[in-house]
Amino acid sequence: MNQPAHHPSALRKPLPDALLAALSALLGERVGTSEAVRQHHGKDESAHPHALPDAVVFAQTTEEVAQVVNLCRQHRVPLIAFGAGSSVEGHVLAIHGGIALDLTRMNQVLAVNVDDLDVTVQAGVTRKQLNQHLHDSGLFFPIDPGADATIGGMAATRASGTNAVRYGTMRENVMGLTVVLADGRVIRTGGRARKSSAGYDLTRLFVGSEGTLGIITEITLRLHPQPEAVSAAICMFPGVDQAVRTVIETIQMGVPIARCELLDALTIKAVNRYSKLALREVPMLLCEFHGTAASVEEQAKTVQGIAAGHGGLDFEWATKQEVRTRLWQARHDAYLACMQLRPGCRGIATDVCVPVSRLAECIAETNRDIATASMPIALFGHVGDGNFHLVILVDPQNRSDLDEADAINQRLVTRALKMGGTSTGEHGIGIGKLDFLDTEHGDAVAVMRSIKQALDPDNILNPGKVIRL
Amino acid sequence: MNQPAHHPSALRKPLPDALLAALSALLGERVGTSEAVRQHHGKDESAHPHALPDAVVFAQTTEEVAQVVNLCRQHRVPLIAFGAGSSVEGHVLAIHGGIALDLTRMNQVLAVNVDDLDVTVQAGVTRKQLNQHLHDSGLFFPIDPGADATIGGMAATRASGTNAVRYGTMRENVMGLTVVLADGRVIRTGGRARKSSAGYDLTRLFVGSEGTLGIITEITLRLHPQPEAVSAAICMFPGVDQAVRTVIETIQMGVPIARCELLDALTIKAVNRYSKLALREVPMLLCEFHGTAASVEEQAKTVQGIAAGHGGLDFEWATKQEVRTRLWQARHDAYLACMQLRPGCRGIATDVCVPVSRLAECIAETNRDIATASMPIALFGHVGDGNFHLVILVDPQNRSDLDEADAINQRLVTRALKMGGTSTGEHGIGIGKLDFLDTEHGDAVAVMRSIKQALDPDNILNPGKVIRL
Repeated sequence: MNQPAHHPSALRKPLPDALLAALSALLGERVGTSEAVRQHHGKDESAHPHALPDAVVFAQTTEEVAQVVNLCRQHRVPLIAFGAGSSVEGHVLAIHGGIALDLTRMNQVLAVNVDDLDVTVQAGVTRKQLNQHLHDSGLFFPIDPGADATIGGMAATRASGTNAVRYGTMRENVMGLTVVLADGRVIRTGGRARKSSAGYDLTRLFVGSEGTLGIITEITLRLHPQPEAVSAAICMFPGVDQAVRTVIETIQMGVPIARCELLDALTIKAVNRYSKLALREVPMLLCEFHGTAASVEEQAKTVQGIAAGHGGLDFEWATKQEVRTRLWQARHDAYLACMQLRPGCRGIATDVCVPVSRLAECIAETNRDIATASMPIALFGHVGDGNFHLVILVDPQNRSDLDEADAINQRLVTRALKMGGTSTGEHGIGIGKLDFLDTEHGDAVAVMRSIKQALDPDNILNPGKVIRL
Repeated sequence: MNQPAHHPSALRKPLPDALLAALSALLGERVGTSEAVRQHHGKDESAHPHALPDAVVFAQTTEEVAQVVNLCRQHRVPLIAFGAGSSVEGHVLAIHGGIALDLTRMNQVLAVNVDDLDVTVQAGVTRKQLNQHLHDSGLFFPIDPGADATIGGMAATRASGTNAVRYGTMRENVMGLTVVLADGRVIRTGGRARKSSAGYDLTRLFVGSEGTLGIITEITLRLHPQPEAVSAAICMFPGVDQAVRTVIETIQMGVPIARCELLDALTIKAVNRYSKLALREVPMLLCEFHGTAASVEEQAKTVQGIAAGHGGLDFEWATKQEVRTRLWQARHDAYLACMQLRPGCRGIATDVCVPVSRLAECIAETNRDIATASMPIALFGHVGDGNFHLVILVDPQNRSDLDEADAINQRLVTRALKMGGTSTGEHGIGIGKLDFLDTEHGDAVAVMRSIKQALDPDNILNPGKVIRL
């Protein structure tokens, strides 16, 4: 958000004709330079100003990716991997021009290993496509960032979402990668063994590197058994503090909660209006439990008891799909309901994550900002992880709106860092949180920079993202 | 194992007097050069030949570690971090001489955060010490590699053990680190937030780097709730295949099994003799379940049903501590029982990890090697992860024994790699598996080398381990 409206780039220079010719010779029709295709690849879901690539190429194989990388390196032209375009911190914007490498045509599920609970996919497979593919296997891939992102993009941004409290993030669920390096070499990291102490953990280095260290073309993922039974529960609380205390105690009791979401009072108000519900307009906790029929019942009842001890109200739980859907309706409708608080606006999303013991305090302080802001701001939380989001509803044409949103974001991140948290729990750095990375990691950023320089000395891969050189 | 009996080292040169003087000025009595202290720091639990450091220093603070690093760098002298000395691939041997940096006096538990289920410790804290410290907190640290290793050493080797199938390895349980780099800078990686997408994952880069990229001085760890109830179960099987099929089905059913160990027939025979038991001399599966009282009963019964479908015999399960201890006695006594198969011998330990679907086949082929070997070889497995160990009982004075053990290890690792596995599931590379790392990771090893060179250009930190330069 703290970016100028335009990205004057010293690196941006006209695309060499020779490069375009070589790309066309390699990929034929799969090179696009039309305004439409460049527009589509020059934006993401963030409010950062669009920044169009000079050309877009569509790769179908790892070998093609390697050849594209080699050509871009020879011509010193930036190369930006592109999946679903659902990132929210400007990760895929071509701020220095160059080539967008669209990987969505690499959308094959290569191997499902049911006995080993793993799968290998090409980078362009989306998470919904993968789960559809797995439907009859008894297994599923739990990471759900909301958008139907590509697995390659999710790996590159270390995505997570509502299920992370039980199943972990991409960090815990990526077992191995095929990566094209900046010098065109193709490496395989990790593997299909459940654990390994063999050498440096390159897999985890590329997961979350946002396309700046290499281009991920294939991913091996852990899968999980589809739960035999699911139960859902909701509960209203007099304040956020009581809701958070309930979650802390639930986790301390060892309840293997699968999802645990918090909606604040403003969001409930928006949902009541949008979906014609009559929920008490106080903070709401939504939980989901996975296990055997007996176990999900026991888990729900345990949480009911804990919630009662913290002033919980209107507790309801259910195992039947229809009732669960009704209970979780407020969560499902929250985003659209909040957007209706200011029709015609655009939502700027930001997220932080703090130790859960500080979550109530962090939300309380943030709510004071929200109360005095000139625009509506919704707050959602993956509260089991201490992770929460703001969606700040701005008029994208209004500079003062953008400045105010920026200031709110600045204060939010500063607050989270002061509480031992992180500047982003699951969105990534992109261009929007570059300054915060320095504040958060200090001298460690210099180590990140050394690694970037060692692996991409010409700064070809998604330049200007994650770290400043 | 595939190392010469001596380590002629071009790097080894006399320790500069100026360095020793500077270290003494810094640490006073905490610099040792006696034969005894050098002997103690010149060996680990492996059969690799001892290689003594020229001096040993005992640090008490991160700042002292940084100063020691600076001195060693100025004098171009190797520096080897040393904890409990329980590594098994020669990780801590001073093969090029230099200084052993003993971190065991940095043994403070710095902060327990019960609400956040995390703890920060100094590198020299051992896992038993930590769990003793946590005893009344309702939390515990699950990673159990057998030895009472230091947390710093466990992080450096990406250790795991019997609980990994449920709780993960050090990779999943280290949240953040304080690291002294080769140039003396002190950085903090990761943090106390449960998840973060902020920048490259340096934490996972240092976890498993075996002291070659930096010296870990403090570690923040995830903790887990002490289970309300525990049940244990054992079952005998006509063959390894049936035992493994039982485990695969158990995991596919979503049973959150906490421990799952396999003993082969030879080990059972040894245990029967050593502990005067009367177990059927066939492969044995030992399981442990953590949860509520109702849940651990349900889990045990589910596994009983699955085992029955695969020819399981003599199934017993229990929740009472005394009975559980009796059921698991074979596992607890296995190592000592196997050592008695050849009194006066030394056990050479090696481990591999394969996708669990290949585990039975891998063990069957390995058992053919074991059957024709001239020495007894015990086989244990953390079967839920596809990880298993051989303990090869050799006369350490007998060259032909060592060569035979080496050949068996070579074939074991080659077999595991052919099956999509890894050369080491939890022991690490050290000096014993350097060649295998190349075979396993190919061109990716060059990337590891670039990272080593970027972070430790003078090759001061534990030179000769993990990767060859």
